[in-house]
Amino acid sequence: MKLKTSPLKINTPIKPNNVSGVKLSTAASSMKYKNRDDLLLMSVSPNTKVCGFLTKSSTASHAVLWCKKVLKNKKARALIVNAGIANVFTGEKGKKSLNKIIEQTSKTLGLNKDEILIAQTGVIGEFVPEEKILTLLDYLKNNLNENKWVDAAKSIMTTDTFHKIASETCQIHGKKINITGFAKGSGMIAPNMATMLSFICTDANLPYSVIEKISKEIVDLTFNSITVDGDTSTSDTVLFFATGKAKNKIVNNHKSEKLFQFKKAILEICKSLSQQIVRDGEGANKFITINVSGMSTKQKSKEIALSIANSPLVKTALSANDSNWGRIIMAIGKTFLNVKLSKINISFGDILITRNGQIVDDYDEKIVSNYMKHNEIEINVTLGNKKTPATVWTCDLTSRYVEINGDYRS
Amino acid sequence: MKLKTSPLKINTPIKPNNVSGVKLSTAASSMKYKNRDDLLLMSVSPNTKVCGFLTKSSTASHAVLWCKKVLKNKKARALIVNAGIANVFTGEKGKKSLNKIIEQTSKTLGLNKDEILIAQTGVIGEFVPEEKILTLLDYLKNNLNENKWVDAAKSIMTTDTFHKIASETCQIHGKKINITGFAKGSGMIAPNMATMLSFICTDANLPYSVIEKISKEIVDLTFNSITVDGDTSTSDTVLFFATGKAKNKIVNNHKSEKLFQFKKAILEICKSLSQQIVRDGEGANKFITINVSGMSTKQKSKEIALSIANSPLVKTALSANDSNWGRIIMAIGKTFLNVKLSKINISFGDILITRNGQIVDDYDEKIVSNYMKHNEIEINVTLGNKKTPATVWTCDLTSRYVEINGDYRS
Repeated sequence: MKLKTSPLKINTPIKPNNVSGVKLSTAASSMKYKNRDDLLLMSVSPNTKVCGFLTKSSTASHAVLWCKKVLKNKKARALIVNAGIANVFTGEKGKKSLNKIIEQTSKTLGLNKDEILIAQTGVIGEFVPEEKILTLLDYLKNNLNENKWVDAAKSIMTTDTFHKIASETCQIHGKKINITGFAKGSGMIAPNMATMLSFICTDANLPYSVIEKISKEIVDLTFNSITVDGDTSTSDTVLFFATGKAKNKIVNNHKSEKLFQFKKAILEICKSLSQQIVRDGEGANKFITINVSGMSTKQKSKEIALSIANSPLVKTALSANDSNWGRIIMAIGKTFLNVKLSKINISFGDILITRNGQIVDDYDEKIVSNYMKHNEIEINVTLGNKKTPATVWTCDLTSRYVEINGDYRS
Repeated sequence: MKLKTSPLKINTPIKPNNVSGVKLSTAASSMKYKNRDDLLLMSVSPNTKVCGFLTKSSTASHAVLWCKKVLKNKKARALIVNAGIANVFTGEKGKKSLNKIIEQTSKTLGLNKDEILIAQTGVIGEFVPEEKILTLLDYLKNNLNENKWVDAAKSIMTTDTFHKIASETCQIHGKKINITGFAKGSGMIAPNMATMLSFICTDANLPYSVIEKISKEIVDLTFNSITVDGDTSTSDTVLFFATGKAKNKIVNNHKSEKLFQFKKAILEICKSLSQQIVRDGEGANKFITINVSGMSTKQKSKEIALSIANSPLVKTALSANDSNWGRIIMAIGKTFLNVKLSKINISFGDILITRNGQIVDDYDEKIVSNYMKHNEIEINVTLGNKKTPATVWTCDLTSRYVEINGDYRS
């Protein structure tokens, strides 16, 4: 099935900055897709720190389990990715297949096995014809190149209708730092861990502990704050690579002001990539921002935001430009969290719908309906006075989602 | 919007038995629907025991909160229901509206206010024009009749495409017992409490404690084991009425063998009503039974069954006759419950798909695809050797669901 590009794609062209120490290479294995690259090899320079976030699924893929082990070393030298088949739930045979890929990649690159990370994405339950990967490893190695970001982003796509890249520069101690990331994902996207494949590379020179703390905080605010359909993938993987090649003076405290610019840049990249994933949500026609505040903790505010974002009834109403805010009340209630009805304020964009637990007196459905026709909608909910804001991004649920997902394997 | 009758409706005609002590009456208020009854008054004889199960939603309706109070008395004398407007999230004004209805009903029937139960179902956030109900109370009272079950079942419908009734007879101590129930519901159906309106009446003569224990057990196995879209309503209400008019010799122990037939009959009724709700699931083309066993507890088996039942990716695959069992693996994993991959067996109907965590050697997609074309599908999952079975019923997710729910208020 050929998918049309999502109408929510932002068309500003992105020129990715190269990241010193990172090289990329792609190839076409034809294991699932025809006439496109579906393999990626990324190599990073020695002493690159790597930090990762993996799915919490209890049926996680072989690749995820492998990465979990490698990430304990806090470093790696290469990443191999294939798109089309996820090698999930393939038992011993699938595990052997993964081992062969790791072993051959390490031999080809002259590295240890535990320096190789891997991600596999696509259909669950099918076996990867690993020979198709193995025969291309030499080619991949020989074509490693500093500026293949767009090719790399394209090679990892599955049901994505556009490739996803974000790039920023900033300074640490006066040195220019490059950060470039790319991602894939458009369905089976729900937060609880990374929920997609996403690889973010920087040449910043920072201790592992600083990179870990910064990325954890940012992943919670971005990749863990998006949802397309509430379904958590078995293969979700976010990896951060820091080569250190920018040779900036090191900063040891992740809260240091010296890192303000850097953190902002990483946040922008992760926000952009995660929002691009939502914008490419299967069948999506609307990009929805849900801001919730006022619960006793930010975590509870986020739980309510996610309940709204994942409700099929809310999402279908949005797809039909219907300001059916009653369904938002339902979605708040189904968390079973303690809320005071008389404190609930809801607005769509700037238009106040309910105040203190009741529809506003001057509610004008026409004005609201006009707003609902936009393809970028903001839902704001406050449930009390506490300043505990959480933001979640999602998309609407359309007939097209049903069609795409009924047709995925055919 | 006029909805076509669900293709999953079972067309065997049901002749509801009258239940001594129960009288019904319906009327058309025109508050939302045209040319149909949307009001129900049910009166039950003195000393009728009443036991109820209400939504756990933290944004529950005024009606649910009122019932919660009345049910503490373990008895009631009348039930008033309106369909079309749920009177949820209507603040003080909505509460006053409900009080007026209760007060006037109690006056009309010569009862105390705390003998009146109420259910209101339909759109959230709108005000009920209670005058349209109040002016019909005399009419409703004067037309109370023992055999208006079908009218009653029709009067409480909202997006339902057919009315839902079930009826059984049995014996206790040699006396004939009648049980008749009716229900409404087709979207916003997720278990955690009753998840719809459902009223079950019997003339059995039993202590409150026996009725409570039996109904609690049965609600868990039936109304709390169905899901259409995972969205929990603010108005879900299941009420059991036992008039005692059958004058059977009383049984004080709910585990007594004397109640075997009675329990079986109640179970059949609740199973039938809850399955009818799923069969009328919005846009549903397939009725899905999900059997899960092998977790350490039945509750955990049920959690996995519900995760499969609520997954949009599983439901869309089913709607497209796609045997995409990988999504079942995903749905198991997203519970984050501890499972052993190597113990997972999945079959569709009698066709084994995976054994011990891997696809079977002789997997034949053609045979499976043929099975998937049926409109009654059974998914069987075992995750270990423990005998901890749980069954959940659901339906597929179709484009029609999206259309219906985009169009509900228009």
